[in-house]
Amino acid sequence: MAIDFQPCWTDTELELYRDMVVRFIEQEMQPDDGAARHRGHVGHAIWRRAGEVGLLCSDIPEAWGGGGGDFRHEAVLYEEMARRSLTGMSVSVHSIVAHYILNHGTEAQKARYLPRMARGELVGAIAMTEPGAGSDLQGIRTRAIRSGDDYVINGAKTFITNGLLAGLVLVVARTAPEQGSRGISILIVETADCRGYRVGQPLDKIGLKAQDTSELFFDDVRVPADRLLGGEEGRGFAQLMADLPYERLIIAVMAVAMMEGAYHETLAYVRERTAFGKPVAEFQNTRFKLAGIATHVKAARTFIDRCVQDMVAGKLDTVTASMAKAWATDLQGKVIDECLQLFGGYGYTNDYVIGRMYVDARVQRIYGGTNEIMMEVIARAL
Amino acid sequence: MAIDFQPCWTDTELELYRDMVVRFIEQEMQPDDGAARHRGHVGHAIWRRAGEVGLLCSDIPEAWGGGGGDFRHEAVLYEEMARRSLTGMSVSVHSIVAHYILNHGTEAQKARYLPRMARGELVGAIAMTEPGAGSDLQGIRTRAIRSGDDYVINGAKTFITNGLLAGLVLVVARTAPEQGSRGISILIVETADCRGYRVGQPLDKIGLKAQDTSELFFDDVRVPADRLLGGEEGRGFAQLMADLPYERLIIAVMAVAMMEGAYHETLAYVRERTAFGKPVAEFQNTRFKLAGIATHVKAARTFIDRCVQDMVAGKLDTVTASMAKAWATDLQGKVIDECLQLFGGYGYTNDYVIGRMYVDARVQRIYGGTNEIMMEVIARAL
Amino acid sequence: MAIDFQPCWTDTELELYRDMVVRFIEQEMQPDDGAARHRGHVGHAIWRRAGEVGLLCSDIPEAWGGGGGDFRHEAVLYEEMARRSLTGMSVSVHSIVAHYILNHGTEAQKARYLPRMARGELVGAIAMTEPGAGSDLQGIRTRAIRSGDDYVINGAKTFITNGLLAGLVLVVARTAPEQGSRGISILIVETADCRGYRVGQPLDKIGLKAQDTSELFFDDVRVPADRLLGGEEGRGFAQLMADLPYERLIIAVMAVAMMEGAYHETLAYVRERTAFGKPVAEFQNTRFKLAGIATHVKAARTFIDRCVQDMVAGKLDTVTASMAKAWATDLQGKVIDECLQLFGGYGYTNDYVIGRMYVDARVQRIYGGTNEIMMEVIARAL
Amino acid sequence: MAIDFQPCWTDTELELYRDMVVRFIEQEMQPDDGAARHRGHVGHAIWRRAGEVGLLCSDIPEAWGGGGGDFRHEAVLYEEMARRSLTGMSVSVHSIVAHYILNHGTEAQKARYLPRMARGELVGAIAMTEPGAGSDLQGIRTRAIRSGDDYVINGAKTFITNGLLAGLVLVVARTAPEQGSRGISILIVETADCRGYRVGQPLDKIGLKAQDTSELFFDDVRVPADRLLGGEEGRGFAQLMADLPYERLIIAVMAVAMMEGAYHETLAYVRERTAFGKPVAEFQNTRFKLAGIATHVKAARTFIDRCVQDMVAGKLDTVTASMAKAWATDLQGKVIDECLQLFGGYGYTNDYVIGRMYVDARVQRIYGGTNEIMMEVIARAL
Repeated sequence: MAIDFQPCWTDTELELYRDMVVRFIEQEMQPDDGAARHRGHVGHAIWRRAGEVGLLCSDIPEAWGGGGGDFRHEAVLYEEMARRSLTGMSVSVHSIVAHYILNHGTEAQKARYLPRMARGELVGAIAMTEPGAGSDLQGIRTRAIRSGDDYVINGAKTFITNGLLAGLVLVVARTAPEQGSRGISILIVETADCRGYRVGQPLDKIGLKAQDTSELFFDDVRVPADRLLGGEEGRGFAQLMADLPYERLIIAVMAVAMMEGAYHETLAYVRERTAFGKPVAEFQNTRFKLAGIATHVKAARTFIDRCVQDMVAGKLDTVTASMAKAWATDLQGKVIDECLQLFGGYGYTNDYVIGRMYVDARVQRIYGGTNEIMMEVIARAL
Repeated sequence: MAIDFQPCWTDTELELYRDMVVRFIEQEMQPDDGAARHRGHVGHAIWRRAGEVGLLCSDIPEAWGGGGGDFRHEAVLYEEMARRSLTGMSVSVHSIVAHYILNHGTEAQKARYLPRMARGELVGAIAMTEPGAGSDLQGIRTRAIRSGDDYVINGAKTFITNGLLAGLVLVVARTAPEQGSRGISILIVETADCRGYRVGQPLDKIGLKAQDTSELFFDDVRVPADRLLGGEEGRGFAQLMADLPYERLIIAVMAVAMMEGAYHETLAYVRERTAFGKPVAEFQNTRFKLAGIATHVKAARTFIDRCVQDMVAGKLDTVTASMAKAWATDLQGKVIDECLQLFGGYGYTNDYVIGRMYVDARVQRIYGGTNEIMMEVIARAL
Repeated sequence: MAIDFQPCWTDTELELYRDMVVRFIEQEMQPDDGAARHRGHVGHAIWRRAGEVGLLCSDIPEAWGGGGGDFRHEAVLYEEMARRSLTGMSVSVHSIVAHYILNHGTEAQKARYLPRMARGELVGAIAMTEPGAGSDLQGIRTRAIRSGDDYVINGAKTFITNGLLAGLVLVVARTAPEQGSRGISILIVETADCRGYRVGQPLDKIGLKAQDTSELFFDDVRVPADRLLGGEEGRGFAQLMADLPYERLIIAVMAVAMMEGAYHETLAYVRERTAFGKPVAEFQNTRFKLAGIATHVKAARTFIDRCVQDMVAGKLDTVTASMAKAWATDLQGKVIDECLQLFGGYGYTNDYVIGRMYVDARVQRIYGGTNEIMMEVIARAL
Repeated sequence: MAIDFQPCWTDTELELYRDMVVRFIEQEMQPDDGAARHRGHVGHAIWRRAGEVGLLCSDIPEAWGGGGGDFRHEAVLYEEMARRSLTGMSVSVHSIVAHYILNHGTEAQKARYLPRMARGELVGAIAMTEPGAGSDLQGIRTRAIRSGDDYVINGAKTFITNGLLAGLVLVVARTAPEQGSRGISILIVETADCRGYRVGQPLDKIGLKAQDTSELFFDDVRVPADRLLGGEEGRGFAQLMADLPYERLIIAVMAVAMMEGAYHETLAYVRERTAFGKPVAEFQNTRFKLAGIATHVKAARTFIDRCVQDMVAGKLDTVTASMAKAWATDLQGKVIDECLQLFGGYGYTNDYVIGRMYVDARVQRIYGGTNEIMMEVIARAL
C-alpha cells in the first residue's frame, strides 16, 4: 500500500486536464528552466504558448476568453508546477490580476484585458508593496492624481512579481491622499510604450531565480481616467480585501504540492542511495523521518483540499485562508528542510530539485502577507 | 467572526444526540469527577446510567441491543468527554471490546454479551499488554491451554483500562505456544465469581486519575471452550489487526476534542485575567499563540473529520488511522502545553481543567500503540 | 567513553560535601518521599535533621550560623535533590529568604533569624504573589499599615512555597499604598502563635505533590515595627530586584540536574528493556534520541556552570540569569518529555521517577517569573 | 545593558589580532565578495595577500612558517569571516590540511609544504568524499597503487572545498584495496603541471557561491613515493580520525559567529524599519523572538567557548566536538531562519547579508560529517 496524496476534489475531467498540464510542463517548461533561472525570467514566448494551449485564466468565464473552469483547474496547474519547483512563471499573480478585473472591473475593462490575458499576450502584475512599507497598506505613498481626463501616477513599487514581463500592471495608489484607506484606488497601467514607466534591475533574490521580481518606477505616468479599476475612486482597499482568500489559498496549494514533490523525490533518492552498505531508506532514522513527513503531507493535503472545496463552493473565508497559508507554508519550510538533509551533500546542489525547493520555499512564508500578518488576521477573529 | 471547529460530518439528529450527551455529562459525570479521581475509578453506577440513557454501544446494531448508529455517535460521546478531560470512564475501550465481539464473535457470543454491554451491566476490557512486553505481540506469554471442555488460562497482564470494573475481559493468549503469531487467540473471561482471577492494585499513574487502569492475574482460570472468540483457535492476531483503524481513530478524535476544549478554556481565561494593567488576551504574544493554536486545531479537526467520514464509509485504512493517531496526539501534547503556559501558576493547579488535560494528554502518545509504533507502521507502507 | 556531565566548578571539598548530601538524601529523604507526596508536605522533622547535618544555609556566613560556603554548596544540594525529583522540601526558597535577611536585614534581624533558619527550626517562605496578580508587582494589594509601634497586615497571598511549614514569612506589602512601586516594603512575619494569620488548604497541584504550596491569609495581623526588612519603608521593590539572579540561577541549576537524572534513568531503562527481540537501546531511533538528549544536557550543563562561576564571582547579571532560567527550563520540558516517551507505558506511572519528573518539571517554566517574563526582561536589555 | 557575546577566551593580544583581521576583511575581502560569488571562487591573489599579512596557518609553529599562535587565532579569523557570511575562501580547510601535514607528515613534508601554505602560495584541499560514498570511508574506491618509485592514483572525488584553487590536495585512497580501513592512506598531490589531474566543473550549489567546491579526477596520476603522508602505508584512517575534533570545532565556531552576526544585523534592521506606524522592534512578537535568539546565541557562545578552551588545552574529545558541531549548526539553522523572517521580503534578497547567511548556513549541517553522523558518533559513546 503506497501513501496516497490524491486530491479529494478531483474528477476524470480534471485528471485529463492534469495530463495535458503535465505534458506541457515537461515538454515546454522544464527543459528551459535552467536557462530561465540563469536569465532571471521565463520570457514572453512561454506565456503565449501557455495561452494557446489553454492554461491561462482557466477559471475565467469563456465569455471573457477564459477556460470556463473553476478554482480546481487553477489548482491543478499550480500543483504541477510547484511539485517541480517551477517558480519562474507566476501564473498565480497573473490569475489574481485577472480576478481583480473580473470581480471589480468595468465591462469595458473586462473586454479589453481578459481575452488578451487568457492568450498570454498581456502578462499581469500587481504593484502594491513600496520600498519601506511592507504589508502595510497605510504606508502607501504612490499617488494617482486626477488631471483632466487622465490620472498622473508618481511613485515606486518593489517586489513586483512578473515585473519585467508584465504588460498590464495594477497599481495601488492614493487618489485622495488625505483620506487614509478610503483614498486608495487601483489603476490599470499598460506598460507597452508607456512614458515615465520604468522597470528597475531585477531583484537579486536568494531563490525564485527564474522569476522576474522587480522594482517599478512611475514618473508622471499618465493613464486615461477609464483605467481606474471599477470606475470609482476609493474602492482600492475593499477590492484588495475581497480577493485575499483566493490569493492565500493559492500559496497554500503550492505549499502542499511542493511538499508532495519533495517527499517523492526524497523517497526515490534514499532508496537508490546506499551508506554503510545498505540503502539509506532502510535506516530507522530515515524511515521515521519519512513516515513523519508523509504524515504531515497527508494532514496538509486534507486541510487544503477542504479549503479548495470551500473555495469552489464560494464559502472560504479570509481567516481560514490565512490559517491555510500560514500553516501550510510553515510546514513546507520544515518538511523541505528535513528532505534536503536526507540528500546529504547532493541536497545542497542543483543536481537535484530539492535544493531549489529549499530556496524557493523560503519566500512562501513571506509573500502574500507574512505569516506574522496571518497570525494578526486570525487573532482579530478569535 | 469566531473560529468554528464544528465537525463537518454532523447533522441535526447527531446534534440532538450531542445535546443529550452533554446534558448527561454535565449532570451525571462532571459532578462526580473530583471524587472519582480521588477514588481511582468511576464506579459501576455511572456505567449503568450511561447504558440506560443509551450512550453505550451506540454504533452496535439494535438487534444486539446497541443504538443502531454509526461511528459518529461514538465520536460525539468521546468528543464531549475529552473536551472536559473526563478520562475515567473508558467508553472507548468498552466499545472496542463490543466491536471485537460484533465483528469476530459467534452468534451465541454476540447474544450473550452485547446487550449486557449496551446496558452497562458488563464493563469491557481488553487484556493484551504484559509486564515487560509493551506493544509487541510476539512477547505474549499468557497461555490458554485446552483441557477437556475448558481453556485454562495462566499469565499476567498490565496497563488494563477498566481493569477494576470490568465484568468481561478479552484475554489475548497463546493457545498454541509453539506457533508464533498464528498460535494467538482471544478468550472471553467473565470476571464475576471467577476463580483464579485477580485484579492487582490500580496502577499509580501521573494522570488519568479517575481511570481504573490495573494489572490482572490469571492463575489457572478455567473458562468453557465456547469462550474462544469466534470459536476458532489462532485467529487472535488477525482479530486484533482488523480493528486497529477503529481504535486509533478514537484516540485521534479525543485528541482533537481535548485541544478544542483547551483552546476555549484558555481563550476564556486570558480574556478575564489581567496583567500589567490589561487583559492577557491583548498582549501580542498571547494573541499570536492563540492564533497558532486555533490554526493547529482547525487543521487537526479537518484531518480527523475526513478520517471519521472514511470510517463511516468503511474505507479508513490502518496507515491513515496510524497517521491520525500519531499526528493528532503529538499536536495535542504541544497545544495543551502551550495553553497551560498561558494560565501561569493557575494552570498548574486543579482549579482549572487545563492542568488535568496536561497530565491526561500525555498518555495519548503512548497507549493504543506508541507513536513510534505508528511511525513503524507508516514506514512499512512507504 | 561515557558522557561526562561533571560540573566544572567543583573541587575535592565540594565532592566530599556532595557525598554527604547524597547519603543524607538517600537515607533520610528518599524513603519518605512517597509518603510525603501523599501527605502533601515533608514535615518539620526533616528540616531539623537537614539543619543538624549542615545542609541549610550553606552559603550563609558562619557568623550567622550558616555553613560559610558559597553558591556552589547550595548548588550541590539542589542538584542532588532535583536529580531524584525530590521537590517537596524547598530548600531553595528557604535559602532565598535567608539571603533577603542577610543582604537587606538589620543586624538584629540577622541575629534573630539566620541561626534558627540554619538549624531548620524556622522554615522560610516568601509571600509575594496574590490571587489574580501573577508576576506583576504593580498588582499587589496586601497592605501593611503603620499603627503605633506595629504594622497591621491585611491581604491574601497564593502559590506560597513552604506555606504550611513556614515559621517565617516575608510578606511583600504596600506600606504606602499611594506610592506605586516605591510604596512596597517587606515585612517579616513569625507564624507561630500569630493572630489573624491563616494557612489555606494546600493547593491541589498537578505535580510537586510533596510540596506544601499554600494560600496565606492575613487578617489584621500585627507585627512590631522592627519586623520591617532593613528597617526602612519603600525598599521592597529594590530588595526583590537585587536577588533575582540568585533565584533564577537556582531554578536553572535544578533544571540541568533533573535533565541529567532523567538522562541516566532513561539510559538504564532502555538498556534493560527489550522490544521486538532486542534491547530498546539498540534501535536507531532510541540511539539518536539519546544522543540528542545527551547533547542538549551537555550544552545546558556548560551554560549553567558558567553562570554558577559568575555567581560565585559576584558578577552574574539579571539578564543572563533570566536567559539561564528560561532556556534551561524550556529545555528541561523537552528533554524530560522525550525521556518519558522512551519508557512507554511505564513512564506514565510512578514506578519510575520519570513520571514524577514530568509533572514536577512543568512548573519550572512558570514559577520564579514565567518564561514570558524572562523574555520581557531580556528584550528590555537588547 | 547590551547583550555581550564576547568570547571568554580572548585577551588583549588576540583582540589586537582581531582588529587586524577585521581591517583586512573589510578592506580586502568584503569589497570583492559580490564578484567572487559571481565568479565562483575568490582567486589566488587574496590567498597570497592573506599569507602576507599573516592570517594563514596562524596556529602552525613559526619554525614551519606559521604564526606560532594557537586555535584561538584561527577562531578569530573564522569568526570574523562567518559573522559576515564570507564563505568563499575556505581558510578552515586550508588549516586542516596544514594540520594533517604538521601532525602526521614527515619532516621533509613539513618543510616542503607548510611555509608555502602559510604564505598562501599553495592552497590546501582534502579529497575524501567520492561520488556515491558520502561520509562513509568504507566506500572509498580511489586507488593509489605503488608502481616502482611512484604511486599511481586513479579515481574521482567530489564536494572538494577549494577544489579549483588548490595547489596541494590530500587524496584519501586505498593503497591496499583488500584491507578495509587498514588499507587506506593519504597521498599528497601537487596540482601544478600534474598529468592526469583534472578539476571538474565547479558544483552548482544553492549557497556558498564564492566557494570553488569541485569534482576532482585522477587518471593515472603519478606521484613520487615520498608523497605518502607520514611515509607509512595504511595510516590514513587513523590520520583522519585524529583531527576530527579540530575540524568539527571549526564548524561550530563559525556557526556561533554567524548567529551573532545575524542577531546584530536583525536587531539593527528592526530598529530602523517601521510597520503600522512604529518600529518593528517594538512589537512584542519581535521583542520575544529577539530575546529568544539572544538567549540561544548566548548559550551557544558559552558552550563553544568551553570547547575552544579545551581545544587549546589539548583535551577536546571527538564526542564533545561532535556534539558541538551538531548542536551549534542545528541552532544556526533555526536562528538564521527566524532572523530572516524578521526582515520580511528584504530578507529574501541579497541587499542584506541575512539572505546569504540563510543559504550558506544550510550546508553546515551536512559537511564535516552530517549531523546524523554526529548522532551516530555520540550514540556509540553512551
